[in-house]
Amino acid sequence: MVMDSKALLKQGERLDDLQIDGLKIIQNPNWFCFGIDAVLISAFAEVRKNGIVADLGTGTGIIPLLLSQKNKTTHIHGFEIQSEVAEMAKRSVLLNGLEHRITIHPVDMDQASLLLGKGSCDVVVSNPPYMEVTEGMHNLVPQKAISRHELTMQLDRLFQTAHDLLKPGGSLYMIHRPSRMVDILVTARQSRMEPKELQFVHPTAEKKPNLMLLRFSKHGRRELKLLDPIVVYDDFGQYTQQLYRIYQSAQLTSFEKNLEDIK
Amino acid sequence: MVMDSKALLKQGERLDDLQIDGLKIIQNPNWFCFGIDAVLISAFAEVRKNGIVADLGTGTGIIPLLLSQKNKTTHIHGFEIQSEVAEMAKRSVLLNGLEHRITIHPVDMDQASLLLGKGSCDVVVSNPPYMEVTEGMHNLVPQKAISRHELTMQLDRLFQTAHDLLKPGGSLYMIHRPSRMVDILVTARQSRMEPKELQFVHPTAEKKPNLMLLRFSKHGRRELKLLDPIVVYDDFGQYTQQLYRIYQSAQLTSFEKNLEDIK
Repeated sequence: MVMDSKALLKQGERLDDLQIDGLKIIQNPNWFCFGIDAVLISAFAEVRKNGIVADLGTGTGIIPLLLSQKNKTTHIHGFEIQSEVAEMAKRSVLLNGLEHRITIHPVDMDQASLLLGKGSCDVVVSNPPYMEVTEGMHNLVPQKAISRHELTMQLDRLFQTAHDLLKPGGSLYMIHRPSRMVDILVTARQSRMEPKELQFVHPTAEKKPNLMLLRFSKHGRRELKLLDPIVVYDDFGQYTQQLYRIYQSAQLTSFEKNLEDIK
Repeated sequence: MVMDSKALLKQGERLDDLQIDGLKIIQNPNWFCFGIDAVLISAFAEVRKNGIVADLGTGTGIIPLLLSQKNKTTHIHGFEIQSEVAEMAKRSVLLNGLEHRITIHPVDMDQASLLLGKGSCDVVVSNPPYMEVTEGMHNLVPQKAISRHELTMQLDRLFQTAHDLLKPGGSLYMIHRPSRMVDILVTARQSRMEPKELQFVHPTAEKKPNLMLLRFSKHGRRELKLLDPIVVYDDFGQYTQQLYRIYQSAQLTSFEKNLEDIK
């Protein structure tokens, strides 16, 4: 059942139209708002028919909302340790009448396999905080600090959780910064989550990548496949046709506004 | 002293002019001839004044020859397990009168730190075989098989040798295939040779990289810096200006011919 949007909106929050079958999302501009990374990872992740998906660190719930429209037979579980953020995500799910297909759990990811069962998921997705605890300055707004820094979501715990949740051969999809590549690949292999696919995202064709999309396979064979790069802007500072195609495959037909908030 | 080229050439070998101060190289077309990778790694490696450099798996001696012209105060040691290939490289050194600056050792790399001393080198360079023993078909010509497959030069031994040879803070420069990235980064960190810089080489801007240049630092701090990519061909199938600049920085002013032989 689709709920009335006004009844679900709290003070200081805004309602954004995702322009997919009327899909809407509640965001709090003082907290962390979703950016291009959530769209890229949702386009990258493959979800099969009747698949069970877990999103670790779901934030506003943007990834479950986008994935729910890619394949309409999946069930997606979003885990979010920040209870007030999880509560807002839950209202976005209600607002879209998707409570039968998306469950938001206001708990730490280490509770995920207790709640869903070991080996219960086909796919795990994550857009984790990019910065190490010791890196840069922590935001004074705790909801932003937790979304940006690995305060509650370290890589080793993330891979361990994904390993516990996935069926053998199941895939973890992640988006992260290339500067953390060594930590990510080393930790993944240690956790028996073998890196299988890597796609870099370049701001322009000449510039080094500033994001990377990764697929890991539980107990996968050792072989990494690089994919053709994603280039965001062309020589004229306009979005590339490739980026428009990706947004279409993530079911976002209009997205200029969503690109304003980039981590 | 520069030797007479005819006296140094054996049957079946050819003499190539590198077009740098008259630098020449002897190659055997039936064995492994140098390609774009040797030029890229030579342009990428930084050698300081009076530096001691080791090249592991030197083959024809192309990397020592190119590096000798980048900084004319360095001494470069090339290690080559294949005695007949090492002997040919030694003749190329004699031919160019560089025997006071380049020493070719016809031994396995595990002899390197015994011969030169532990912690003796400022820089280690390697253009190792790209393929695992179990990967693809082995060439029936043993000199080609050894240059292409990790028959004698496995990654863990390579990193261990570089670690033994280098001063603390010294750099290992390597070129390899992106498909081996996980193995390389994991083994490097295990060997305390921290990956510090990574530059991808793309055939064209839209295509995935097929080579990567890496710098590792002995006992370095954990942080990987990605560099802007190298693109070999433009949209018209011509070499890019960037590639011409790289060839110039590797001191190769004319190189069309050298590009014929790519692994």
